[in-house]
Amino acid sequence: MSETPAPLPPGSTIGILGGGQLGRMLAIAAARLGLRAHVYDPAAAPPAAEVAAAHTAAAFDDPAALAAFAEAVDVVTFEFENVPAETAAVLAARCPVRPGAQAFEIAQDRAREKAFLERIGIPVAPWAPVTAPAEAEAEAASAVTGMPAILKTARLGYDGKGQVRLAPGDAVADAFATLGGVPCVLEAMIPFTAELSVVIARGADGAVAAFDPGRNEHAEGILRRTTVPAGLPARVLQDAVLAAGKIVTSLDYVGVMGVEFFLAPGGRLLANEIAPRVHNTGHWTMEACATDQFSQQIRAVAGWPLGDARRHADAVMENLIGAEAADWARLAAEPGAALHLYGKNEIRPGRKMGHVTRLTPRT
Amino acid sequence: MSETPAPLPPGSTIGILGGGQLGRMLAIAAARLGLRAHVYDPAAAPPAAEVAAAHTAAAFDDPAALAAFAEAVDVVTFEFENVPAETAAVLAARCPVRPGAQAFEIAQDRAREKAFLERIGIPVAPWAPVTAPAEAEAEAASAVTGMPAILKTARLGYDGKGQVRLAPGDAVADAFATLGGVPCVLEAMIPFTAELSVVIARGADGAVAAFDPGRNEHAEGILRRTTVPAGLPARVLQDAVLAAGKIVTSLDYVGVMGVEFFLAPGGRLLANEIAPRVHNTGHWTMEACATDQFSQQIRAVAGWPLGDARRHADAVMENLIGAEAADWARLAAEPGAALHLYGKNEIRPGRKMGHVTRLTPRT
Repeated sequence: MSETPAPLPPGSTIGILGGGQLGRMLAIAAARLGLRAHVYDPAAAPPAAEVAAAHTAAAFDDPAALAAFAEAVDVVTFEFENVPAETAAVLAARCPVRPGAQAFEIAQDRAREKAFLERIGIPVAPWAPVTAPAEAEAEAASAVTGMPAILKTARLGYDGKGQVRLAPGDAVADAFATLGGVPCVLEAMIPFTAELSVVIARGADGAVAAFDPGRNEHAEGILRRTTVPAGLPARVLQDAVLAAGKIVTSLDYVGVMGVEFFLAPGGRLLANEIAPRVHNTGHWTMEACATDQFSQQIRAVAGWPLGDARRHADAVMENLIGAEAADWARLAAEPGAALHLYGKNEIRPGRKMGHVTRLTPRT
Repeated sequence: MSETPAPLPPGSTIGILGGGQLGRMLAIAAARLGLRAHVYDPAAAPPAAEVAAAHTAAAFDDPAALAAFAEAVDVVTFEFENVPAETAAVLAARCPVRPGAQAFEIAQDRAREKAFLERIGIPVAPWAPVTAPAEAEAEAASAVTGMPAILKTARLGYDGKGQVRLAPGDAVADAFATLGGVPCVLEAMIPFTAELSVVIARGADGAVAAFDPGRNEHAEGILRRTTVPAGLPARVLQDAVLAAGKIVTSLDYVGVMGVEFFLAPGGRLLANEIAPRVHNTGHWTMEACATDQFSQQIRAVAGWPLGDARRHADAVMENLIGAEAADWARLAAEPGAALHLYGKNEIRPGRKMGHVTRLTPRT
């Protein structure tokens, strides 16, 4: 355990690497607590810059700009997990970085992630590494997973890219070649009955607070909807929360993390992946909880006590993707619907433009 | 009735005159709806500038800067009511200004305000104008109000300045001289049993939505606490909401308004004053309502439909004044307390530094 740092006083500056919608909502949360946000993002006018006290427009691999940024802020946090190790190192040499590098190393590599989860006793779907074009390894892997299976690049892909689905009879070695011969993992394709996630926070003092688990629906690799309460057995939800708690505690993690699970036939809970940051499946907390995930992340990285994660309403959060955001006027007029738009000028297919959360009395 | 304007699309810019905490919370509300905020405030780094897409640092009576500001935004609104008529005129010649000049003319002059309220049938405490040092007018005024009474400058004073309390036997003419011989109003001092306020919104389409009335406690002319529900008879609360609705409708008002009332002995409701802007007594809506007063103001001035003003929790809002904000670490750790700090670097006596809202289940 590391020593608990003193909380950053109001007026301190939170550095946020990444200026998309998550950075934007983090910057707003910082402001509400009297903290300044300094956003680092290569774009000239990223969504978060409009609500931040300062913005550095520089590349994520620009060591001089990163060093100046780290000197200008009191702590650095991130809106994405794909942080290059060199970037994190340049920052960490100059100021506190929360969460720390260990969480990124695990979250950026599916093989490390699965090995970590298994090591701390959290079940995952059957899997095996595929690291070379040799037939032998490919066959051994498919013996572990069975078919159908899915071959994924070990390093991060986004929204379904870097994946090949395999049916019985397909050759793992061919799929490996299709993905460019980079290190991969082969995963059993579980015919899951539900997807759920736990958004959880761990403070610098070691305190842990989880939001209620949400049930998620994806389409084409993009989150469509999160529903809370999840409508799943209490035992499943409790297992998910306990697993998420074990993950953040094992990593000595500071900040908010999203942990995704599959519910497999027979009621088995399998961890799918971890995201060491605020999470799209936690957006519903903005209206439905005493403290939302963005405030919780700012509190954690500023060394403040975590806030109250209690939920006071039921909620369904739906993403507005691409042209769906053009429907803003109708959504703005819908009673009980909380509309959020991210300030992105250009509507593009698959782009997350905003979200809407519908509240109903707590059940 | 004026024609209903088309709603401003996401990406439009809301101009906000005044960059204090109200401007700051308005800018955040705009951002959440995908709108840009451009703050106009003479200070180099006012609280609202840290969360706004743009900031013009210029005097409120600088016609060139005001004109450039008005050209750069799609609508102008205000965080304070003390807007000089010339300022409003420069702006209104170039872009929509909401609310319009009529509300400021009334709210800036106690004599006009009381005459307006009486004209539309809303009771106020007995009062009379005192405009000249002549004994006759002063005596006639005290015959209307009786004693004790309070002499106030007709134009806006802040936080108890520009007022003289009069006991039986005190000479109104002497008090008038003390206040510099400017136009005044003499008001009967009502031994009220409660202070309450209604924060109400009227949309560009004429729709009206009121938040639940709050009961207010002041000390030394500064709001200390607002409690909702107010714990007053339903008939009183309904009368207050109806009176506020009559005010915004009579003025063809667009935006949020705070209306303060006294509850006099015998249960009589007397209007005290109107504030044509978001109101300190409405801060509790940020956590306790589906749509808060800041979002409501942005929706109204942007020509969007008003949001859902329903309350889902009971709330007590307390201001953090001066050195009280130094207690932030304890407040941040208090379960169920939502802490807001305004990003003001310097603690000064009487300065509003933040507020805290405590929620309990709705009764």
